[in-house]
Amino acid sequence: MWVQKLVGRSLNQVKTINAAQFCRQISARIVNKTNVEVQPQKNEKSLTFPGVWLRDNCLCEDCFHGSSKSRKLDWDNFDTRIQPVEVKTDEAAKEISVKWSDNHVSRFSLNWLKNRSFEEERQKEYLQEFYRPTTRHWSGSEFQEIARHFKYDEVMTQDSVLMEWLQSLAVYGVALLRGAPLDEGVVRRLAERVGFIRRTTYGEEFVVQAKPGAQNFAYLSLPLPLHTDLPYYEYKPSVNILHCVVQTDSPGGSNMLVDGFHIADILRREHPEDFERLSRVLVDWNDIGSEDGREFHNIWRAPVICLDSEGRYSRVNHSVPQRDSHFNVPLSEVLPWYESYARFVRLAIADSHAFKTQPGDVLTFNNIRLLHGRAGYDDSEVSPRYIVGAYLDWDIIYSRLRVLKKRAERQ
Amino acid sequence: MWVQKLVGRSLNQVKTINAAQFCRQISARIVNKTNVEVQPQKNEKSLTFPGVWLRDNCLCEDCFHGSSKSRKLDWDNFDTRIQPVEVKTDEAAKEISVKWSDNHVSRFSLNWLKNRSFEEERQKEYLQEFYRPTTRHWSGSEFQEIARHFKYDEVMTQDSVLMEWLQSLAVYGVALLRGAPLDEGVVRRLAERVGFIRRTTYGEEFVVQAKPGAQNFAYLSLPLPLHTDLPYYEYKPSVNILHCVVQTDSPGGSNMLVDGFHIADILRREHPEDFERLSRVLVDWNDIGSEDGREFHNIWRAPVICLDSEGRYSRVNHSVPQRDSHFNVPLSEVLPWYESYARFVRLAIADSHAFKTQPGDVLTFNNIRLLHGRAGYDDSEVSPRYIVGAYLDWDIIYSRLRVLKKRAERQ
Repeated sequence: MWVQKLVGRSLNQVKTINAAQFCRQISARIVNKTNVEVQPQKNEKSLTFPGVWLRDNCLCEDCFHGSSKSRKLDWDNFDTRIQPVEVKTDEAAKEISVKWSDNHVSRFSLNWLKNRSFEEERQKEYLQEFYRPTTRHWSGSEFQEIARHFKYDEVMTQDSVLMEWLQSLAVYGVALLRGAPLDEGVVRRLAERVGFIRRTTYGEEFVVQAKPGAQNFAYLSLPLPLHTDLPYYEYKPSVNILHCVVQTDSPGGSNMLVDGFHIADILRREHPEDFERLSRVLVDWNDIGSEDGREFHNIWRAPVICLDSEGRYSRVNHSVPQRDSHFNVPLSEVLPWYESYARFVRLAIADSHAFKTQPGDVLTFNNIRLLHGRAGYDDSEVSPRYIVGAYLDWDIIYSRLRVLKKRAERQ
Repeated sequence: MWVQKLVGRSLNQVKTINAAQFCRQISARIVNKTNVEVQPQKNEKSLTFPGVWLRDNCLCEDCFHGSSKSRKLDWDNFDTRIQPVEVKTDEAAKEISVKWSDNHVSRFSLNWLKNRSFEEERQKEYLQEFYRPTTRHWSGSEFQEIARHFKYDEVMTQDSVLMEWLQSLAVYGVALLRGAPLDEGVVRRLAERVGFIRRTTYGEEFVVQAKPGAQNFAYLSLPLPLHTDLPYYEYKPSVNILHCVVQTDSPGGSNMLVDGFHIADILRREHPEDFERLSRVLVDWNDIGSEDGREFHNIWRAPVICLDSEGRYSRVNHSVPQRDSHFNVPLSEVLPWYESYARFVRLAIADSHAFKTQPGDVLTFNNIRLLHGRAGYDDSEVSPRYIVGAYLDWDIIYSRLRVLKKRAERQ
């Protein structure tokens, strides 16, 4: 690969590269009997790697299974007191080798090491760009600026556009695809372009259309207040794909969207007591009914604002119809919680952005983060509003996004 | 239904019931202008219900959508300062009615209220028996006592046996079905008896059989050290279903199981520093490869022992091949973490219980909680070990279990 890259260069450039190579001088030494310090080249900052971690990640054939890219070291007998006893550098191969107190020898390329540096800055970059892109929160008034549009055809055929769509979805939690065909297979094809549909109690694809005597609140033409879908699942579906096949002629039927993380930001900043309550009190979310003749009784207990161990938002739950009448909290918590929740709802309504999708639009948004709703509409038999939906999971989307990023890097 | 139940009783019993009814005397009053106190009958303890909660859960046609069993109250304009102004009891209908400061009137049956009592004991019972049964942890030496066996046919045809199987799985995290046919459709039929298969990167059903040049470590005949499946998913598949179609003739191929929650209990009690580290330090779990020509790059960061906001175990992660070489923690955390992790691994190995499934056995266990492994085996071409697997999610299993419990209660 390196040879290939040289081909297109002038002799002059080649000389410069060769000269630069001479300046490089990897050095490595053992520190405190346990760590290995590597200086990739003179005057560059040294990187420290814990010996135990290096030994654990030895890439030789005995310790690492190449085709599955996974560790096969015998961990049942792994000794955490292992120590590096000798380090060598190989300038030409740009790698170091470490001899261990058990006589095993490991080799690591400089690039491999640099990519796994324990420097805080490098770790931050890896986590915020490659692991899961940092989210950017927005208010309703900023919607037009942050909401990106992509052409359905380009998403389906160009990896770079697919990557941009998924990146927008990860960062802003919403993106719109336009110009999709009007057949019912669009959401499946789109989901399979990413990975596969996340199935729920309601099946894989679902149709949102007014149904008389509906079992689910969403299947009525009434206004649908802001909510997240399926809060009653521990494993809540991550991303909503809503393909507009037919839009109503009536003035209604608009979508409403709110960034739940933005509302959480406001509460955290301006109403810390409400924030504390809404991120601590466990609410019972539920769905009782039947679909295709099979009964279900879903319950999941979680706060409205869920935080991870580092205090970051991991999920927002909100749904008027799917909040259980069972509320398993001490009596004294009830009224204060209702007051905090009512504030959350008021703030969300005030911040919501309304817009109406057109046939061929595919609205995609993060169901872990955004609240969505729908204005009521007056359906005619001539053009009954017809939306086909499906879910995708973040596990699958991020995996795809990482593969695309790695591939783009290599090009 | 009540009438029906009376039919089989003697006149004497009917008289007793009638006499008991006369003793009942519901009473209800408003307390502190906000709460409603209900005494179901004389000399019985009163139950207190917050007014705001009662109003929120009004069951009239304007506030509640019967066929979808969900709230349709206009929450966009809900006033948390609502107050009860008058309460009445209806002895015959066994219900109370509440008139509100907005003139709305709500009616609640005594049974409905009792089931939603804010008494701590009632809430505990509801949560520990109906919401998610309390887990009971076990050591390897207790395996024979706790591991229940069920007949596959009975699970497939009798709801009571299906319920017992799922309850065992919920409480102990493991159960064995016996006498299943030897066709490849068993895991699907079983999963569909509960709900539906949880799909992963590796598809719906998967086959575990030694494959030359395997992309995944599980597809080798080497020993497979203790691990949990797919720790690199945020939404980790919940329950493993492993159907033994052909078992190896060699002495190997045994399954090993360990209750990860039991190991966590030991650490919490005897090695609190290790417990603290293993439940706090985020580990990068990963899987890089391709399946059916589609590349994936899965990563999820989570501790080995995951705790919920109440300090209960929500998940255990452990997998030697699927722990990433990227380890995004400060340098100073590395060696201590390795030492704590090595202790966890040693304790798990020491506590593991080995047994060999036979053709027709279906081993089912909680992948969120148990570690499983496999002894190596020497496969012959005459009887290549052949296991078909699939996953089920707890959301779906608990839903089914609740439906079965409700149904059993009604009978």
